[in-house]
Amino acid sequence: MPASIQITESEYQHRSSRLLDYLKTNKLSGVVLFDNYYILYYSGFAFIPTERPITFVMNAHGEKVLFVPRLEVEHAKSSSYIERVDSYEEYPLDPHPMEILKKTLVDMGISGSCGVDTDGYPWIFGYRGPGLSELIGSNSLQIKSFIEDQMMVKSPAELALIRESIKWAHLAHTLLQRYTRVGKTETEVSWHASGEATMTMLDAIGPIYQSQNPFSSMIDVGYRGQIGRNAAIPHALANNITFQVGDVLVSGASAPMWGYNSELERTMVIGQANDKQKQFFDYMVAVQDIAFKAIKPGLPCSNIDRALRVYYEQHDLMPYWKHHVGHSIGLRYHEGPFLDLGDSTILAPGMVFTIEPGLYVPDLGGFRHSDTIVITEDGIDILTYYPRDLQSLTIPG
Amino acid sequence: MPASIQITESEYQHRSSRLLDYLKTNKLSGVVLFDNYYILYYSGFAFIPTERPITFVMNAHGEKVLFVPRLEVEHAKSSSYIERVDSYEEYPLDPHPMEILKKTLVDMGISGSCGVDTDGYPWIFGYRGPGLSELIGSNSLQIKSFIEDQMMVKSPAELALIRESIKWAHLAHTLLQRYTRVGKTETEVSWHASGEATMTMLDAIGPIYQSQNPFSSMIDVGYRGQIGRNAAIPHALANNITFQVGDVLVSGASAPMWGYNSELERTMVIGQANDKQKQFFDYMVAVQDIAFKAIKPGLPCSNIDRALRVYYEQHDLMPYWKHHVGHSIGLRYHEGPFLDLGDSTILAPGMVFTIEPGLYVPDLGGFRHSDTIVITEDGIDILTYYPRDLQSLTIPG
Repeated sequence: MPASIQITESEYQHRSSRLLDYLKTNKLSGVVLFDNYYILYYSGFAFIPTERPITFVMNAHGEKVLFVPRLEVEHAKSSSYIERVDSYEEYPLDPHPMEILKKTLVDMGISGSCGVDTDGYPWIFGYRGPGLSELIGSNSLQIKSFIEDQMMVKSPAELALIRESIKWAHLAHTLLQRYTRVGKTETEVSWHASGEATMTMLDAIGPIYQSQNPFSSMIDVGYRGQIGRNAAIPHALANNITFQVGDVLVSGASAPMWGYNSELERTMVIGQANDKQKQFFDYMVAVQDIAFKAIKPGLPCSNIDRALRVYYEQHDLMPYWKHHVGHSIGLRYHEGPFLDLGDSTILAPGMVFTIEPGLYVPDLGGFRHSDTIVITEDGIDILTYYPRDLQSLTIPG
Repeated sequence: MPASIQITESEYQHRSSRLLDYLKTNKLSGVVLFDNYYILYYSGFAFIPTERPITFVMNAHGEKVLFVPRLEVEHAKSSSYIERVDSYEEYPLDPHPMEILKKTLVDMGISGSCGVDTDGYPWIFGYRGPGLSELIGSNSLQIKSFIEDQMMVKSPAELALIRESIKWAHLAHTLLQRYTRVGKTETEVSWHASGEATMTMLDAIGPIYQSQNPFSSMIDVGYRGQIGRNAAIPHALANNITFQVGDVLVSGASAPMWGYNSELERTMVIGQANDKQKQFFDYMVAVQDIAFKAIKPGLPCSNIDRALRVYYEQHDLMPYWKHHVGHSIGLRYHEGPFLDLGDSTILAPGMVFTIEPGLYVPDLGGFRHSDTIVITEDGIDILTYYPRDLQSLTIPG
């Protein structure tokens, strides 16, 4: 067997056998999934979503089919362990793909109660079509909660991919920090660091690497416009700002690794931070430390947010609060559960979270580090290892 | 008023007034939209979708609200013309965002029959929540067909953005072709061409430019793994292949322009094409020419596909066929209608399509040009202007 870091066939089989147990317990005749991340999770098939429905089907005997357009047949066969690939000619060609899918479902004995993620392919990219319940006259039961719960807890192989992602995101962030200088622009520095890190990664692990990310095959590092005063707007889109002395920067680095994501974000300052910048930087590091210490398996997610809110309140920081402590991460860059007062999910070993409490101060900037952690038997492992202190994150002015 | 190429406020107003007419005609009390592209279309607000629902609401009096998480309040206010921005603290914080949204809806007099794109925010990125019909006890009517139909026909301002996108995609493709050489890798060449084109674009139009693309602020040019024999797999994901003499390449270039996309794809050959490569290249150009000539306003979309199928059949090319002639393009990289036997939509001036019939030959490669065209009063304008002939698309071997 050649060297590999990807998810093995037996792990995919294990995942779908758990789904099969769920089908049997709930007396469902089968499951039909349309979401590209769910399909990747159970089949290993990564693809770009378009107007052409792609579906993962499994019946109560555990027989599996990938249902794809003609266009994707060879791609599906070569990149998934699932042997049976059924196809339709094209969308919106008559007969409609859902009519062809119906034949596959009938052939597999799927009727009556059937588990789905959405009742038919969602109407994205111009697609229009019937719901599955309409199509096969059955009760389709939305089973996304089960799938989301399953995806929450990462296996050792998934954790290894997330750790591998972090190494290359770390490289990209090191380069980003090195290349960020007064007078340079955001786009130039982001492009330079992302490309150099990507090509170095490919030189190092290219033969055993695939991004399996539908939207990018590159490491992505940059600032998304969170520079200077704009850093107070957390999810800004990039805007090609020129770096100046006194800017507070909030970075982000992520390297797609066989579909898996990690998150590394740092607050950096150009030139010596002034007192107010120092004060908020210190607050931000302090709240992140509280989160690291508060997380333990067995606690509800909400506890972590609550612990931080106490600190925010004590230090009159709520005016600068904008979002929860962190989110889970895996095949999707955000996923549940969330470290949020409103989430009572119990923390369990193998769950992976970003820890990224932020402070957003108008006319000063945003302050947020994001580290990726995994819950262990008795606490956490912090998977990212980029310096967190102000001195290390000060860029020459 | 400063120089600008973006969609004007009056155009956004015009778009939503047409939606308002539809509400009135259908006696709906309001409309609630969750799709990020629809929200951008009616409000000008571009954002990255996450677990936090963002919603565009309009009632039957034409009053409009953007409903966003605390995190996005400043961003929404600064990047949309809509004056009222309602917000919720966080997801999944209690009360649930949908409970807060309910207050906005009640306040706006939205109850009973209400138009929606999806019945509640879709369960993406770990979000879970109730359907809108469950929430406000009303009949929610899915009105995506109306919205899709409205978005199909592009205004002069939209066409201007698509034409602007094409210029920079053309630059990127010129660089891609120039840098593609035997021994270089896909990633290196794609990165070099994409970055140089992006930075040149920003030097030229930076002050009046925004990508407004949720997934990329860069021009994207490359091969997505469609190199050599892999070129026979049309939607492959990139794989960092090293270029060799004899490779057939299928490229793709797109530049996000205030949210709008265009498409430029070319089949290129490294070294002198052999007879079989020449033969299929010529077939491909011939079918594309047939499409250009067949498209006229007033005809159904299906006619174009039918005209090409005659040619495919006559020349025994159906074994190499994999997909329809083309798709519409705009805020999304694929949208309806489709130039497909199954699409009876009538072609109308202002509709923008990709024309990209392909031939995929196992062990030889893929052959596909994609050009972006607009339907005029009496035919088409081909908006892309990159050379289409084999000589121009031959890369030194």
